[in-house]
Amino acid sequence: MKVVTFGEIMLRLKTPEHLRILQARDFEASYGGAEANVAVSLAMLEDPVAFVTRVPDNPVGRAALNEVRHYGVDTSYILKGGSRLGIYYFEKGSNIRPTNVVYDREYSAFSMATATEFHWEKYLEAGDIFYFSGVTPAVSPEIQKAVLEALEYCRNHGIFVVCDLNYRAKMWSSQKAQAVMKECMRYVDLCIANDEDFEATLGIHAFDGNMSTGICQIDTYKQGMEEILRQYPNCKSVASVLRNMHTVEDGDWLGIYLKDGEFYESPIHTVHSLEAVGAGDAFAGGLLHGLLRDFDPQKTIDFAITASVMKLMIQYDFNIVTEEDILRVMKSSDTNLQR
Amino acid sequence: MKVVTFGEIMLRLKTPEHLRILQARDFEASYGGAEANVAVSLAMLEDPVAFVTRVPDNPVGRAALNEVRHYGVDTSYILKGGSRLGIYYFEKGSNIRPTNVVYDREYSAFSMATATEFHWEKYLEAGDIFYFSGVTPAVSPEIQKAVLEALEYCRNHGIFVVCDLNYRAKMWSSQKAQAVMKECMRYVDLCIANDEDFEATLGIHAFDGNMSTGICQIDTYKQGMEEILRQYPNCKSVASVLRNMHTVEDGDWLGIYLKDGEFYESPIHTVHSLEAVGAGDAFAGGLLHGLLRDFDPQKTIDFAITASVMKLMIQYDFNIVTEEDILRVMKSSDTNLQR
Amino acid sequence: MKVVTFGEIMLRLKTPEHLRILQARDFEASYGGAEANVAVSLAMLEDPVAFVTRVPDNPVGRAALNEVRHYGVDTSYILKGGSRLGIYYFEKGSNIRPTNVVYDREYSAFSMATATEFHWEKYLEAGDIFYFSGVTPAVSPEIQKAVLEALEYCRNHGIFVVCDLNYRAKMWSSQKAQAVMKECMRYVDLCIANDEDFEATLGIHAFDGNMSTGICQIDTYKQGMEEILRQYPNCKSVASVLRNMHTVEDGDWLGIYLKDGEFYESPIHTVHSLEAVGAGDAFAGGLLHGLLRDFDPQKTIDFAITASVMKLMIQYDFNIVTEEDILRVMKSSDTNLQR
Amino acid sequence: MKVVTFGEIMLRLKTPEHLRILQARDFEASYGGAEANVAVSLAMLEDPVAFVTRVPDNPVGRAALNEVRHYGVDTSYILKGGSRLGIYYFEKGSNIRPTNVVYDREYSAFSMATATEFHWEKYLEAGDIFYFSGVTPAVSPEIQKAVLEALEYCRNHGIFVVCDLNYRAKMWSSQKAQAVMKECMRYVDLCIANDEDFEATLGIHAFDGNMSTGICQIDTYKQGMEEILRQYPNCKSVASVLRNMHTVEDGDWLGIYLKDGEFYESPIHTVHSLEAVGAGDAFAGGLLHGLLRDFDPQKTIDFAITASVMKLMIQYDFNIVTEEDILRVMKSSDTNLQR
Amino acid sequence: MKVVTFGEIMLRLKTPEHLRILQARDFEASYGGAEANVAVSLAMLEDPVAFVTRVPDNPVGRAALNEVRHYGVDTSYILKGGSRLGIYYFEKGSNIRPTNVVYDREYSAFSMATATEFHWEKYLEAGDIFYFSGVTPAVSPEIQKAVLEALEYCRNHGIFVVCDLNYRAKMWSSQKAQAVMKECMRYVDLCIANDEDFEATLGIHAFDGNMSTGICQIDTYKQGMEEILRQYPNCKSVASVLRNMHTVEDGDWLGIYLKDGEFYESPIHTVHSLEAVGAGDAFAGGLLHGLLRDFDPQKTIDFAITASVMKLMIQYDFNIVTEEDILRVMKSSDTNLQR
Amino acid sequence: MKVVTFGEIMLRLKTPEHLRILQARDFEASYGGAEANVAVSLAMLEDPVAFVTRVPDNPVGRAALNEVRHYGVDTSYILKGGSRLGIYYFEKGSNIRPTNVVYDREYSAFSMATATEFHWEKYLEAGDIFYFSGVTPAVSPEIQKAVLEALEYCRNHGIFVVCDLNYRAKMWSSQKAQAVMKECMRYVDLCIANDEDFEATLGIHAFDGNMSTGICQIDTYKQGMEEILRQYPNCKSVASVLRNMHTVEDGDWLGIYLKDGEFYESPIHTVHSLEAVGAGDAFAGGLLHGLLRDFDPQKTIDFAITASVMKLMIQYDFNIVTEEDILRVMKSSDTNLQR
Repeated sequence: MKVVTFGEIMLRLKTPEHLRILQARDFEASYGGAEANVAVSLAMLEDPVAFVTRVPDNPVGRAALNEVRHYGVDTSYILKGGSRLGIYYFEKGSNIRPTNVVYDREYSAFSMATATEFHWEKYLEAGDIFYFSGVTPAVSPEIQKAVLEALEYCRNHGIFVVCDLNYRAKMWSSQKAQAVMKECMRYVDLCIANDEDFEATLGIHAFDGNMSTGICQIDTYKQGMEEILRQYPNCKSVASVLRNMHTVEDGDWLGIYLKDGEFYESPIHTVHSLEAVGAGDAFAGGLLHGLLRDFDPQKTIDFAITASVMKLMIQYDFNIVTEEDILRVMKSSDTNLQR
Repeated sequence: MKVVTFGEIMLRLKTPEHLRILQARDFEASYGGAEANVAVSLAMLEDPVAFVTRVPDNPVGRAALNEVRHYGVDTSYILKGGSRLGIYYFEKGSNIRPTNVVYDREYSAFSMATATEFHWEKYLEAGDIFYFSGVTPAVSPEIQKAVLEALEYCRNHGIFVVCDLNYRAKMWSSQKAQAVMKECMRYVDLCIANDEDFEATLGIHAFDGNMSTGICQIDTYKQGMEEILRQYPNCKSVASVLRNMHTVEDGDWLGIYLKDGEFYESPIHTVHSLEAVGAGDAFAGGLLHGLLRDFDPQKTIDFAITASVMKLMIQYDFNIVTEEDILRVMKSSDTNLQR
Repeated sequence: MKVVTFGEIMLRLKTPEHLRILQARDFEASYGGAEANVAVSLAMLEDPVAFVTRVPDNPVGRAALNEVRHYGVDTSYILKGGSRLGIYYFEKGSNIRPTNVVYDREYSAFSMATATEFHWEKYLEAGDIFYFSGVTPAVSPEIQKAVLEALEYCRNHGIFVVCDLNYRAKMWSSQKAQAVMKECMRYVDLCIANDEDFEATLGIHAFDGNMSTGICQIDTYKQGMEEILRQYPNCKSVASVLRNMHTVEDGDWLGIYLKDGEFYESPIHTVHSLEAVGAGDAFAGGLLHGLLRDFDPQKTIDFAITASVMKLMIQYDFNIVTEEDILRVMKSSDTNLQR
Repeated sequence: MKVVTFGEIMLRLKTPEHLRILQARDFEASYGGAEANVAVSLAMLEDPVAFVTRVPDNPVGRAALNEVRHYGVDTSYILKGGSRLGIYYFEKGSNIRPTNVVYDREYSAFSMATATEFHWEKYLEAGDIFYFSGVTPAVSPEIQKAVLEALEYCRNHGIFVVCDLNYRAKMWSSQKAQAVMKECMRYVDLCIANDEDFEATLGIHAFDGNMSTGICQIDTYKQGMEEILRQYPNCKSVASVLRNMHTVEDGDWLGIYLKDGEFYESPIHTVHSLEAVGAGDAFAGGLLHGLLRDFDPQKTIDFAITASVMKLMIQYDFNIVTEEDILRVMKSSDTNLQR
Repeated sequence: MKVVTFGEIMLRLKTPEHLRILQARDFEASYGGAEANVAVSLAMLEDPVAFVTRVPDNPVGRAALNEVRHYGVDTSYILKGGSRLGIYYFEKGSNIRPTNVVYDREYSAFSMATATEFHWEKYLEAGDIFYFSGVTPAVSPEIQKAVLEALEYCRNHGIFVVCDLNYRAKMWSSQKAQAVMKECMRYVDLCIANDEDFEATLGIHAFDGNMSTGICQIDTYKQGMEEILRQYPNCKSVASVLRNMHTVEDGDWLGIYLKDGEFYESPIHTVHSLEAVGAGDAFAGGLLHGLLRDFDPQKTIDFAITASVMKLMIQYDFNIVTEEDILRVMKSSDTNLQR
Repeated sequence: MKVVTFGEIMLRLKTPEHLRILQARDFEASYGGAEANVAVSLAMLEDPVAFVTRVPDNPVGRAALNEVRHYGVDTSYILKGGSRLGIYYFEKGSNIRPTNVVYDREYSAFSMATATEFHWEKYLEAGDIFYFSGVTPAVSPEIQKAVLEALEYCRNHGIFVVCDLNYRAKMWSSQKAQAVMKECMRYVDLCIANDEDFEATLGIHAFDGNMSTGICQIDTYKQGMEEILRQYPNCKSVASVLRNMHTVEDGDWLGIYLKDGEFYESPIHTVHSLEAVGAGDAFAGGLLHGLLRDFDPQKTIDFAITASVMKLMIQYDFNIVTEEDILRVMKSSDTNLQR
């Protein structure tokens, strides 16, 4: 069972420790993006996976490709072209100080691609699952077109489609997002919807915008999840992460999985994070792994949420944890040094 | 409205992470001091501000000057002379392990200055507010003289004087401090008094010395604040920060502002700090900003305490936050990543 | 009063911050091992101490020796020989993510030593106390023999023997450990037993294996401690650390000291650790210091547990704290910056 | 005498040491660009100077502004606008391995500015000298327009114009460059022309393209310099740097200054460089300083070339040397440690 | 045309800059070994290549595998097993101070492998060229057996065999080396022999041991090369690198290629190296690339020696240069910054 | 045979790489001083040696002591007292850019010591050789007194005295130096005199001040050496280092040793240095080692100059080389990687 993910990978320039960009004299350079992150999650879990994107044919683009290949992702379908790799500057917050991201992703190699450059019949030939997040169509109209062509191919060839709605207010308005995502949702088999995604991308109410009481809103969340299935009958299951965030680092995390009419809830994890980026992608990766390995729904959601909260303790965008690492945390509360 | 601050700036040599000085092979080099910190706070808030000091005319002294100018402080009045820049070694504590400062500031360019080197009529000509902390007169008798000359100039020219009592037991005894600070207080319009400052510099009782119950002692604090106004009728307002510190990093923070006979209290912020240095200076900076922008007293104290607790999440001595940053934290509890 | 400790010192290769080994491009290099750590603890506390081990006569071995000498430990008895210094790779966990140690210590200079290389009559001639932990005999049969020869010498010359049972499941099975440690225990005057040590090395039940409820099991712990004294009448006292660990960093720590039929309990310290390695060795160091300085039993256990929890805030293996540092934390709850 | 420089400032992302971009996990972040570099050179030499540019109103843009202000450049005319700061990735070569620059400067805040945003009557009001290099008009047609408007203002107000032709093949073709630079040259009082600049920007032959024999071609160089004065009678002097480069670091450097019909040649400096970036800008800065301080032509060219070769030993783009530093190297060959 | 290389990959622990191991507090961690280096060279040159080895199934072993995969080498045949990855400590010399390597490679996963673990019919099925160096059989008798089995397979299936004799005095005596390498040579089609390799591995005289006059000994070198072909008629060509080394960094480099009875000599490169490790492997990589791309012999040796000297300017073991990089240096002497 | 050295140890704050102090955000922290450096040289050569100094009883002072003990120097005579450790800021030059040292050593613990604090009868009781350099008496009048008391003790007890004249223009004038050093010289058995030392400390002409032609002035040098022996009949031998320095890093080095009326000259070493600090102290260390081990005069000077030039390739102040390292370089010109 092979997964194909599609999206943009960017250079991430993070200030050391918690320095503000205004104070930085060095940046840690790494590479990430929702769909690349999911691909690496799966490779770490030893699931076959390919990542499709477009990077410039220069050292920065090649470095992004290498970094994904490093962890075992199939990079043979990655296009070379365009002139720059998108960038995001990243400044890690702390306690009451919010984390700050400055995007410099316009005019990137991926965003300047045309839909015709992507040959889905080739990329998806051996694929069983296609994954993308709402960030991908937000990149450009041509990329929207490419997504829809991929989705069409999936429908015609029985490829299972997973979509994380993943709304980014800095990339597009809710209005534009809805115009596109509602169309995409007609092809989706499994949908991941978190927090503002419901409203912003599908116009469905589930969450009131207060991140400190996400779990308290579990009822409206569940209603929203059911509403997705009602509106998109092709979509058979929905998964969500609910959080009560107390500070930038402290929060309670709960996964919910609605499948075949039944809700499965993970235990609540109360954690203090080291770096919040990519937790959603780690959740998607865990979910996909559960699908690929035929975990039952309860184990699937437990595994996915554990993968997600473990990412909070891993630096950079990728979730560098093995299946064994996740299972050990799932079953044990003894977190001390194992000598 | 322009502010002029007066005091010493030192080289701060901090061990990386939480290493002890005994373990260090590198020091992070930055520059700071109460009045320089306040000046940078104001520059970050886009208030015109000049910093007056004396640094040696060598690369270390010039680096200190440049670092302050970097953030937009007017450095044109800084004197060059003397032979060394004061230093403080800084070892950040953690949890039950106290933070440790080793001063090496004796014989510094600033402490060896003579009062006649400072030309207040020039520095204060365009000034509306003069700021100094109790650290400045603690440096040397000549600097005490310079402070008093500045204060005299302020009284004669209607310049508003703000003083943070800022007692440092490592610099002078309470007895010496009182001899000087009581004299200075006769010129002060707005006084900042925290914790031991009341007793050590003015002989007024307000706080019993237990840092874990500062807020619990709010009543004696308020009495102390009122007592200041009673003893120094020229002084029209007092501001204080009260804290219940549970560990080196964990504490509750409350700001109180006594103005025109009325007490204004900020909300209590419960925070886990990244680096505690300069929080008091950030409070002073926020307070001055409120004065300069004519915030009402409640907004002033709310702004000042928020500026102060945000400093706890900023590395090095300077409070690198904008007005927008502070206002966002004041009005929002959603501290997650804003993408 | 001079202490002699005997054991292995290894190169520790730690990833920066919390990086996984899989992500590391640099390792912090330091040196440590239970008995070296105890020796450095004592040297920091200004107690005369020698460390006996064997290191290869190459730059890596010499660096290990130098690092111990750096802090004032007598290294003149350290043997040079063998071909490699043992290594342990160290990846610091966070919150729910466990700390991970990868041992690469087989075939080390120490483990390949023969018992006849060690000349106890020389090393222990000026010694008053001999210290080793259960890690030492776990290294190899020859080292077991060397330990027993040292113990025999101690018995014959009235040298006080302290042993931290210190079970390491990655080094030997409980069965093998018991075969050796039960023999060793016949020479021990003061025994340190924590958590699984009771069962794994002596076959005595005290702890159920759940690290989050160690303190809750205080009764069985005490029974285990008494059982040790009953089974090994030569042993006059036992000390233990009990913990309720909530996350990798958060826990409650309690020291218990059974001496002359009486239990002495320290206060419980609730702390958030920076680095957990070596806390047990710091406890042993504190205990030995109490013995050397003739502290009363209550002060001894209070001092030892404070030394132990302070180590949690110190990076690398060695407990770089002075007696003054420990006494200040013992008597004060004011942990703020002392300027 | 005040100088105003106009051009783009970029974020420079340099790999550590000599790592290739493909190997980098960190980038050193600094800021530079020809005209910013010249401005900082002058500020270090204590000449009044303002830098005009446009940076985005985000932390990256502000950091660029601060870095220039740090060294004393007047930044009050810098515009805020646009969405991104241009970037250049920088990989330092070694010996036979060429240094490599990857530009990512398209769509930058500066390149997207319109000519009408720049108010020359304000910026140049107190200016005596206007400086720009050929990089500035290469940025965009609007910036070309802005340059020409500035030049027109200079002609009308007697402001002395200095231009470093500074051809960049990665930014525009020789054909495009000539169309613009020939027009600009009609306003220039002092022209700096090096190597390929003659041919590429003015169509004048002077250099055959072989960097290892630049000094050997001194005759054609001189002819080219005279030809410039002949073709542009408004231009009264030309300065050039000639080099025989043997490796990336090793070369001989010679400055020539043609003024009032006479050639002035500096001594040849044979040097091994630490970092080649900005040597040309340092030359321009030295030349301007000579003009401002009324050095005679021989001292001017000696000073300029010494400033230029000293830049080769200074890291990052800015030439952090004082007048005293330069004069000392000019007069002394004793380069040892001065204790 | 696909290449398969076989050998050990180790963790390389290099001190920062030129620090001695005795001074180091950090090690740069990278991975390398002759045959891994050749594989990465080829992958960088876009030649299909697989690397066969055995690494422990722990994070250190996985990191080694990932690092090779990073650059595009096929790692699917790498075995997992054994308990440790070999290590070499690396201390870079300077000028008259020799570079120092401390091996800690005994008992490594690779050296403990049995010949039967390697399935050559699978690894070499799609292979056209098999590459190994003399380091591989030096590892252990079982690995010698594995090499011979691979060679037997090659002979039977017409796979072209390339061997770099690569003698390591720290690994085996000349006597042992000859016993094995003379046997191996009976299968080799192209042999690389440098300096002491002739005598130490084949008993053929070519070089007198003085590294500062290698090129001066060109005649005996050539005789040695011819002697190899005479003694091993299966071997059709020999390539060698001759050097006059003046300091640790400064030297002249010459490549000679004897093919079909004719000698081809490259130009002499006089270079100052940044890091000498892996230059021989880069030479082998360049030579193999020439074979794969059917370069004529003169271009082959020119390309190989240029690849080799470029490696001297690249940090870590791998030669991170593209074909374009090499061709540019081959044809150009202009090594300045290309903007 | 035991050596005792006496002098100041300082904290050295070096900017990373070649950064100027004005650019630095970090300092590498190490410890050094002429006599500490000599002591460490000897300890590395396995000669018994004690270092006498005074450091403040704070973490900075203790770190200095530890660093010297690290390498095996006996630190048991080091006094604790005073308030600060002297500092020197260090900025490494390059090629034509001079290295720059900014001293901040006034008021140091050592300089504030009184002569009576030093108990020479105790420190020198087991000593055979006493070593100091001219830097020591330059520190303060009290230290001059202490030096003279030590010298008196040596004369009375037959302890051999070695003095490196070591003139520092930044510490005292030639006039003051002569007043003191001429007095000291009456006790010296072996004198080291370099370059300006002859004239500045003894008023003897030997060198014209041009560092690029030191070796060319060999005749006047030799006359100066002989003149020393003539004027100070107690002094039986003189050693000097002569240099032709071409750049900050490039130079020729020659050692001369005048003993029993005969001159012994080392070979000339032409080297490119990595860090010049401490080469003179390394020379002294080598010379002392030759004395201690009874090398013949030719071997002594060869060993000393080789030790000295090897220090040029070692970072920080201490010469971290073994006798074996030095002998290998002395006898071999093959400086390549030894694998």
